Amino acid sequence: MGKAGAGRFFEDYAVGETLRHATPRTVSEGDTALYLALTGSRFLQHCSAPFARANGLPALPLDDLLAFHIVFGKSVPDVSLNAVANLGYADGRFLAPVYPGDTLEASSRVIGLKETSSAKTGIVWVRTEGRKIDGTPVVDFVRWVLVNKRDPASPAPDPVVPELPAAVPADRLVVPAELRPRNIRPADTGSPHFFEDYAVGERIDHVDGMGVMESEHRLATRLYQNTARVHFNDHVERAGPRGACIVYGGVVLSIARALSFNGLGNVLRILAINGGSHVNPCLAGDTIHAWSEVLERAEFSGRRDVGALRLRLVATRNRPCADFPLHRPEGGHLPEVLLDFDYWALLPARSCIA
Amino acid sequence: MGKAGAGRFFEDYAVGETLRHATPRTVSEGDTALYLALTGSRFLQHCSAPFARANGLPALPLDDLLAFHIVFGKSVPDVSLNAVANLGYADGRFLAPVYPGDTLEASSRVIGLKETSSAKTGIVWVRTEGRKIDGTPVVDFVRWVLVNKRDPASPAPDPVVPELPAAVPADRLVVPAELRPRNIRPADTGSPHFFEDYAVGERIDHVDGMGVMESEHRLATRLYQNTARVHFNDHVERAGPRGACIVYGGVVLSIARALSFNGLGNVLRILAINGGSHVNPCLAGDTIHAWSEVLERAEFSGRRDVGALRLRLVATRNRPCADFPLHRPEGGHLPEVLLDFDYWALLPARSCIA
Amino acid sequence: MGKAGAGRFFEDYAVGETLRHATPRTVSEGDTALYLALTGSRFLQHCSAPFARANGLPALPLDDLLAFHIVFGKSVPDVSLNAVANLGYADGRFLAPVYPGDTLEASSRVIGLKETSSAKTGIVWVRTEGRKIDGTPVVDFVRWVLVNKRDPASPAPDPVVPELPAAVPADRLVVPAELRPRNIRPADTGSPHFFEDYAVGERIDHVDGMGVMESEHRLATRLYQNTARVHFNDHVERAGPRGACIVYGGVVLSIARALSFNGLGNVLRILAINGGSHVNPCLAGDTIHAWSEVLERAEFSGRRDVGALRLRLVATRNRPCADFPLHRPEGGHLPEVLLDFDYWALLPARSCIA
Repeated sequence: MGKAGAGRFFEDYAVGETLRHATPRTVSEGDTALYLALTGSRFLQHCSAPFARANGLPALPLDDLLAFHIVFGKSVPDVSLNAVANLGYADGRFLAPVYPGDTLEASSRVIGLKETSSAKTGIVWVRTEGRKIDGTPVVDFVRWVLVNKRDPASPAPDPVVPELPAAVPADRLVVPAELRPRNIRPADTGSPHFFEDYAVGERIDHVDGMGVMESEHRLATRLYQNTARVHFNDHVERAGPRGACIVYGGVVLSIARALSFNGLGNVLRILAINGGSHVNPCLAGDTIHAWSEVLERAEFSGRRDVGALRLRLVATRNRPCADFPLHRPEGGHLPEVLLDFDYWALLPARSCIA
Repeated sequence: MGKAGAGRFFEDYAVGETLRHATPRTVSEGDTALYLALTGSRFLQHCSAPFARANGLPALPLDDLLAFHIVFGKSVPDVSLNAVANLGYADGRFLAPVYPGDTLEASSRVIGLKETSSAKTGIVWVRTEGRKIDGTPVVDFVRWVLVNKRDPASPAPDPVVPELPAAVPADRLVVPAELRPRNIRPADTGSPHFFEDYAVGERIDHVDGMGVMESEHRLATRLYQNTARVHFNDHVERAGPRGACIVYGGVVLSIARALSFNGLGNVLRILAINGGSHVNPCLAGDTIHAWSEVLERAEFSGRRDVGALRLRLVATRNRPCADFPLHRPEGGHLPEVLLDFDYWALLPARSCIA
Repeated sequence: MGKAGAGRFFEDYAVGETLRHATPRTVSEGDTALYLALTGSRFLQHCSAPFARANGLPALPLDDLLAFHIVFGKSVPDVSLNAVANLGYADGRFLAPVYPGDTLEASSRVIGLKETSSAKTGIVWVRTEGRKIDGTPVVDFVRWVLVNKRDPASPAPDPVVPELPAAVPADRLVVPAELRPRNIRPADTGSPHFFEDYAVGERIDHVDGMGVMESEHRLATRLYQNTARVHFNDHVERAGPRGACIVYGGVVLSIARALSFNGLGNVLRILAINGGSHVNPCLAGDTIHAWSEVLERAEFSGRRDVGALRLRLVATRNRPCADFPLHRPEGGHLPEVLLDFDYWALLPARSCIA
């Protein structure tokens, strides 16, 4: 390899260490156009500059998940290049909107390490922070991955397992101060449903199905500069157990979120990622459907114009969601379920209707 | 489904009703770059900002068909989500160039309704108007679609069938006042042929063939935020009669128009859509060829710098166009014909040559 | 065909003739976003506007190869539409960075002609120059192609074979005067290796593999407005000897260059193309790997902040590069080798480390 790197192994991490990730990236309207072509998203907040400005923002923000994927992608070469599996996310917060012209950079702090019983792998927990180059925090989340050891004989570190909240508590959610929804027209957003209209326990089948094809998932994953080999090295993956590259879980998440427009069209912003797991692999050719469940509602003291919904977003492959597929009777997720995701979304209150 | 919608059925339309479509969209240079990558178009008017400015425009306009597809896409959730077929277009006019930064919105007025003899479906005619958010009309056209009834037993409405012109009369064509072609260099536009050089009855084989692949048509259709299920739900379409998603007819139109550069390179702008039908379905993997025929010529009173050609544009699948394929001897279109489109194009006169 | 063109044949070229190519093109941030999604490139110089500005540039430049491909693409309709093969490049120099908003135009001068022994084809040498519309030269290179004769019976021209340098001499390399690297942080560029760290003879396996799929190579080639039929006419190519469209060699080059980030992450700019040949065809579905060898080092008088490496870049299909595959024992390239490319790259010296 010479001067090329092959990524870190489990032995290369130390609790407390901070990894500064390469390639700060200036985002542009080109990223927004591509994200739209890759997902078909129709949330007005990310499509109409006049709407964004009428609601207090200085410009048309990038989709929150686009910003998340770019930050996540930066962490891959240092965190998950040799990962066997992404095990989960937790305690993620979206802290500021990102606009064309902003430059995003990222770093990760190692917050936990634990060798697995096989002694061939270990779990690494990191807290990844994405910032604008002026220091403004953009997104902050914990993820943990199963990483190969370089040498199964190397000694296990003292296990450190971080305590993580089951969900981000509502009082830690950050609503951008400048975001002031008002004069929202349901005819423009495509949805007559506002914060007050959603009840805990309510489920929504997002109806539409979206196939994810070979070139589409690869274009998306490269747009995020996510270099994980399982998404791109067809030569190796075709000979592997799945016979094909695996679709980056973030592609499934973004498509499921785009599908959720049909029923959640007034969502203004993702506020937090409480948790999430990619419970089965998605392959090119799969058709994704999605459904949502309202888990919790939260109001903000001092702001009557918005409220937050804690939502479960479930994505399936090749199975419509009219019956809200999730678990097997004997426990565990159904094999058709790809994603089981828990997040907070910001919605305008009915008082914002024009 | 809960709060998600499943689209309108035939019973849900009333003549005279106006449907305001969701998601006004701010367009950008990112859309232009993607459109170029998706179609390979080389018309100078949409590639060179200095050329556009030298000919009177304030900036590089989006391709006219890109603007059309975006407006069309907005109408899909309200007009054709449950459409069985797009039956035709008529009386379409392009009213103003669209520039990066413009925000496009759209509405449709129901202008005709007629139940079909089976009583299971009905034809809905709408006039769709695309505007900039400041009210400037951009494009305006009639289309009619065959829509399923929710219940075959529901009573038929009084039939209203709009009268539509066979072609937009030349005196209704709108040439943007600011568009003042001058100093056009054939070496730059790639074509030595100006308005005077085209004769009625003349046919042009555009020679080149362009395959349209799985991910390409889907990226394009999502870029236009066209959500029609037949283009995306592979799970359903694979089990259907065609065994695959159908390519959005606008993708065929845009590729045929891009191919027409070879022979019509000096076209400055599309002025009108007289009519058009997608006579056979296009599937991913098809190679598109195209040919054109000059149907009519029109001059503008008070403007000697430009003229209009009424053109038939025919696109085929997997068949070169040296022999101008169109109809079967026994009548009807050949099975290789995908598109039979009738439009007005604006060309500079020879006096504009630098 | 009527007014459409079918491209030039060997008889249509004359030594000394200049061909001005069609469709000057204004580039944008949209092109940059697409190039990134198509290649996965992570060179900081083309990702971060603050980094570009901190190193003396006025804005974020387009990737050098993106500018090269756009210029090359313009020459295709006039030079290689009827080409049987691209035989090689030589004496190419990158003369100025290209920024969003610049308009690129191109012309080619015929500098050599020689009929081949079969009398059915001939070799055409052209020097292609890409310029900004204000006249600033951007890139300049020689390429030669094997072109069909219209009529094998037409007489052979007097052979003119240009003398071409084996490599661009270091004293003809152009380092943009405004490019002043300083305060480079290896944590940001992803590489701790600077100019002084590379030794002649050193080889680097770039490790990662990148599949190139059907829609990806076609999107890229259309983005460059390269219309060569072998990349797009699936109807013809499926019936041909390869059974599929051939991937534009520039796509292979760009992916190999993107892979070279892993080991050459501090490259600031491509200075020259010394030579290169596409030794075997790449087809959609191939996984590309790459390796590099340092052939030569050059310093610049009066500039201690940068140095140039002459590099061989080899790309393979479906074969990792740990053993640096290149030639067969009996001579000639291995069948797995796609590209054997020789170029000069600009690197910062260690004195630039922040």
